[in-house]
Amino acid sequence: MMHTIQIPVRYQETDMMGIVYHANYLVYLEIARTELLRQLGVEYKDMEEAGFVSPVTNVSVDYKKSVTFGDTVHVRVWVDSYSKIRTVYGYELTDQSGNLVGKAKTTHVVVKQGDFKPIRLDREFPEWHAMYMRVMSPVS
Amino acid sequence: MMHTIQIPVRYQETDMMGIVYHANYLVYLEIARTELLRQLGVEYKDMEEAGFVSPVTNVSVDYKKSVTFGDTVHVRVWVDSYSKIRTVYGYELTDQSGNLVGKAKTTHVVVKQGDFKPIRLDREFPEWHAMYMRVMSPVS
Amino acid sequence: MMHTIQIPVRYQETDMMGIVYHANYLVYLEIARTELLRQLGVEYKDMEEAGFVSPVTNVSVDYKKSVTFGDTVHVRVWVDSYSKIRTVYGYELTDQSGNLVGKAKTTHVVVKQGDFKPIRLDREFPEWHAMYMRVMSPVS
Amino acid sequence: MMHTIQIPVRYQETDMMGIVYHANYLVYLEIARTELLRQLGVEYKDMEEAGFVSPVTNVSVDYKKSVTFGDTVHVRVWVDSYSKIRTVYGYELTDQSGNLVGKAKTTHVVVKQGDFKPIRLDREFPEWHAMYMRVMSPVS
Repeated sequence: MMHTIQIPVRYQETDMMGIVYHANYLVYLEIARTELLRQLGVEYKDMEEAGFVSPVTNVSVDYKKSVTFGDTVHVRVWVDSYSKIRTVYGYELTDQSGNLVGKAKTTHVVVKQGDFKPIRLDREFPEWHAMYMRVMSPVS
Repeated sequence: MMHTIQIPVRYQETDMMGIVYHANYLVYLEIARTELLRQLGVEYKDMEEAGFVSPVTNVSVDYKKSVTFGDTVHVRVWVDSYSKIRTVYGYELTDQSGNLVGKAKTTHVVVKQGDFKPIRLDREFPEWHAMYMRVMSPVS
Repeated sequence: MMHTIQIPVRYQETDMMGIVYHANYLVYLEIARTELLRQLGVEYKDMEEAGFVSPVTNVSVDYKKSVTFGDTVHVRVWVDSYSKIRTVYGYELTDQSGNLVGKAKTTHVVVKQGDFKPIRLDREFPEWHAMYMRVMSPVS
Repeated sequence: MMHTIQIPVRYQETDMMGIVYHANYLVYLEIARTELLRQLGVEYKDMEEAGFVSPVTNVSVDYKKSVTFGDTVHVRVWVDSYSKIRTVYGYELTDQSGNLVGKAKTTHVVVKQGDFKPIRLDREFPEWHAMYMRVMSPVS
């Protein structure tokens, strides 16, 4: 399953190069990822309220074409791989004309607030685990 | 007592206008305020570790001259008024050549994490209260 | 004429206090202001493409209630006053339950890119001038 | 040649997870990179003033340990590879106690403002080219 969201560029996100500052792509990725999870039936907010957080352990972005104020970024997001401990999301970013803006992957674990020790999703969040298994299955 | 800190402008803080995005001045103010407190013998970090936070209740900024990447902002900060519940800080921002960049005031209360109810500093943080009384006294 | 936009809080906009960092309200105001202008028939982007920019000269925000990830901020915006040189916008922010989150005013001039000298809107941007006169008239 | 800078974490850089928001590491990298260039005798600002900019084409970050307000991030940066068109920087981030915080690489090209077409550094910026050749040589 894939999900695409549209994010109009904010003026604040530009820099003096006249384009969106590269770190802001990571914010776009997060918004897309959160919305994908919501579409799949889970809320990241609920995980935090249960005392867990899901930090990023790796980010990799290829920047293909700049965008600026007035553009709308379309972020397509999907679960790329999943291993009970680790989830990798894949992303493809395009602009409103369909031009490729960038590609990205982010890796995440889930940890307890406080000790930041990674947990196994199948044990602590069976609902999330079942959801990831479902979206990773060949027929999904 | 006044304190002045120097903050070199970060590229990330600029926008496509070619100057520092106006919201980032609020970050400069916070850095200056935190450093003033440290000079006065208290650490904002300790307050948070004790279960309290100090949200901003009002911000007012006059923008006089823009700054950009390559400039260094000098922020002069002082305690403008104090009332056990409420602390007002004053700021004057200049650039590396002494040109006036802006003036600002911010107002703060201290609240318990969770309920966000303002507390009285003289009761909960006597050390902070004594410090504010000292800096507000005519001879300081 | 007033306009209201809805802005879902981004995780990135929160800070370790667990609420939206106060400087991000200025970003919300800008998004609302830009959308109001669009509704009134002008595009800020066009002004920049004509070689002019519109920096903020004053910002004043009253923070009434914090918001956090999961909340949606409703920003109501209107033209508060206008004088050919200077435009003041007024804002009222509420959350998804109608609670007052904050009130704000921002003041803007229009300047030439490069020299940053304020210009008169009735001379350089008659369309914007007419629009501001229209929205400031008693019957609007 | 390597260069290490120290960056005290700003409160604004944290998120509601209580740690520095992951996108802000990219800002730290940029600050370190700019300072390395300065140490090597070139100023990024001069390149922009000559009508060129140097966008990021790839970013890859491994997050090893979180940092928060009160910590100081030490960023070690070096030129990892150089090919006239493309420069790769390497980074290692540690905290004030020497714990590994993360590792990163960023890739950059230089383009003309306006058309964003990559240029060859040896033709357009011989001084930068010579500098990169020098730092990439075995004896440096």
